[in-house]
Amino acid sequence: METELGFLLDLALILLSTKALGIFTKKIQMPQVVGALLAGLILGPACLDILQETDFITECSKIGVIVLMFSAGLETDLKGLKKCGFAALVIALLGVIIPCIGGYGLAYIYNGRIIPSDATANILFQNIFIGVILTATSVSITVETLKELGKLNTDAGTAIMGAAIIDDILGIIALTVITGIGNPESDANVGEVLIKIVAFFVIAGIVGFLFYKLFKSWTDVAGEDKRRYVIVSFVFCLLMAYVAEVYFGVADITGAYLAGLVISQTARKEYIEKRFSVLSYLMLSPIFFASIGIKVKLPSMTKDIIIFTVLIIIVATITKIIGCGIGAKCFKYSTKECIQIGAGMVSRGEVALVVMDKGGKALMPSSLQGSIVIMVVATTIVAPILLKLLFKDKA
Amino acid sequence: METELGFLLDLALILLSTKALGIFTKKIQMPQVVGALLAGLILGPACLDILQETDFITECSKIGVIVLMFSAGLETDLKGLKKCGFAALVIALLGVIIPCIGGYGLAYIYNGRIIPSDATANILFQNIFIGVILTATSVSITVETLKELGKLNTDAGTAIMGAAIIDDILGIIALTVITGIGNPESDANVGEVLIKIVAFFVIAGIVGFLFYKLFKSWTDVAGEDKRRYVIVSFVFCLLMAYVAEVYFGVADITGAYLAGLVISQTARKEYIEKRFSVLSYLMLSPIFFASIGIKVKLPSMTKDIIIFTVLIIIVATITKIIGCGIGAKCFKYSTKECIQIGAGMVSRGEVALVVMDKGGKALMPSSLQGSIVIMVVATTIVAPILLKLLFKDKA
Repeated sequence: METELGFLLDLALILLSTKALGIFTKKIQMPQVVGALLAGLILGPACLDILQETDFITECSKIGVIVLMFSAGLETDLKGLKKCGFAALVIALLGVIIPCIGGYGLAYIYNGRIIPSDATANILFQNIFIGVILTATSVSITVETLKELGKLNTDAGTAIMGAAIIDDILGIIALTVITGIGNPESDANVGEVLIKIVAFFVIAGIVGFLFYKLFKSWTDVAGEDKRRYVIVSFVFCLLMAYVAEVYFGVADITGAYLAGLVISQTARKEYIEKRFSVLSYLMLSPIFFASIGIKVKLPSMTKDIIIFTVLIIIVATITKIIGCGIGAKCFKYSTKECIQIGAGMVSRGEVALVVMDKGGKALMPSSLQGSIVIMVVATTIVAPILLKLLFKDKA
Repeated sequence: METELGFLLDLALILLSTKALGIFTKKIQMPQVVGALLAGLILGPACLDILQETDFITECSKIGVIVLMFSAGLETDLKGLKKCGFAALVIALLGVIIPCIGGYGLAYIYNGRIIPSDATANILFQNIFIGVILTATSVSITVETLKELGKLNTDAGTAIMGAAIIDDILGIIALTVITGIGNPESDANVGEVLIKIVAFFVIAGIVGFLFYKLFKSWTDVAGEDKRRYVIVSFVFCLLMAYVAEVYFGVADITGAYLAGLVISQTARKEYIEKRFSVLSYLMLSPIFFASIGIKVKLPSMTKDIIIFTVLIIIVATITKIIGCGIGAKCFKYSTKECIQIGAGMVSRGEVALVVMDKGGKALMPSSLQGSIVIMVVATTIVAPILLKLLFKDKA
């Protein structure tokens, strides 16, 4: 019976530690989400090794990030998002290109020295692949931080949301290109991938519109709020997430975010939003945040790898801020907002890990996988701290 | 990627089907929970075979029933429960003895005919074991039904809650006795089991009291409701459930119920209750109810086994109503209330399955395990229907 019920203990531990450390980080003027991330890191294999990643944690954390992005969609100001559409594209593009160059450059300098030259792999592609990993953006932590600070619907917040979605798409394209060319046996076809992405947004648009019409006429009839509205919204969110990832190769969180955007246009928005916020904070979000830290397994590291790790963290942080910042500067954003937008895109989160996982076997030297994981966690912890500092005074 | 995200589809399917069928059963004047149970049965291996039991479903359903019992504890009128303590003991005792005799009698008549006489097993113990399975009571479905009907805090509702807890303990003792005597290799010792049960309630009482004092002084300070109160309550509930089952051999749901009782005495009760109700209906309860139906795998059945199955369902239902009804009749309850209390104890739910699982290998002919599972599901569906009919007019 002991092991069968172990997940209850895991859950209790996650809830208690993320909340306790969250309260602590809040006390020292940092976002609560930093505490939650640290809780996973401390309890996980990297430090105390009390918590290990289980299927339960993995699957609940997946639902957690989906609910988080769905809620972000619910809270997004759609008009603001439309207005900043072109700006978001430019921000995302520069936020992909400059980190990619930075990552490639760093890998180029170090290749042969600490990156073992694997005869079967093409060194050029290895270097580019490290650049591609740095292009990823995980916006979930930023969303949580901006929500906590009450800044999700500022101009900068909206721009971050828009750019993050586009970044996700650019990341998929870059990943497909590099694995397609670097690995001749891969059956990924760039044209096919592009068609699928376009098809997804077209179909999502049509489905979203139809769902919006149906949902509106269904919920407009009765005056009272009903549990079934919340459940049907959740089902829509889960299906959009599933279909996006499985049938179109677009990230599940993008599907969930779009589902949230659709529901945000209905009159039941606030009622639904509140229910999801409970589901999120009471169980799913703590599991998601803790799971990021729990994933970290510190490898045996040589001095060279430690230096590389430190450098890649710095490169990852600075190139994203510069890239997105320049992108934002091309439009009407103030310098302060440009830095805010850049900082909001710094977190790599699970997206970079997925990229590594998918392309890693052929293109990523295994000795560096630990460095990438540490970089992901470091940028994920740095991002909310930066945001908190940058959003201190009203922008 | 397909299989990795399959749990999202499972969850969407469970949410949609349980709600849709729940609304349907409500329309035809039956409790929604019946629809949710049917949804699992229809989608599971017994019918369409679209949903199979996964670890994700098992673990979420476990948390679901724990949250359900915790909420029941939160809503229980502790004074009423204390008042009916002795009555609950008698109700539970007779609700254990009479079904046990009924199950034994039925098995005795059929043994040798359809129950294969296994040379290695003792027929007497086989028969008694089938009786012991019928002693179990699963109160979670009753709780949900009474909540739905708004009758949880009636005299009958309180008596059911009290009797169900005591029934749980009697069930553990009966199981230990029968497996201990019937299986000489079992290391279960009746005295030890009894000491553990007593120790649990003593320790739970002390811990509950201390937690109550601490929680009260912590939450009385600030005026505002805070998320941390809900999270700490959840952690307390999970730990009580875990410790009850793993260290004391008492059912986890009993631990969760006691945790709910403790929190029910604090001023934050209502705030906490509402948050758990969202967590429950939006995700965990649907999974729990569906999981009961999903567990059913129809075995290849001979005519004799079908007759035995029908008879055991009838015996299980009638003996519980008669046993508990007579028990209640010894006290001040009206005839109507007696039948209500009996009907509230009919559902065998997961408790009987656990009993079968623990003692089944040595004592249960495998050909009959399908009959027992069907009996469990049948009583679980019958109970809420009976309750709805019996509670129609105000008692």
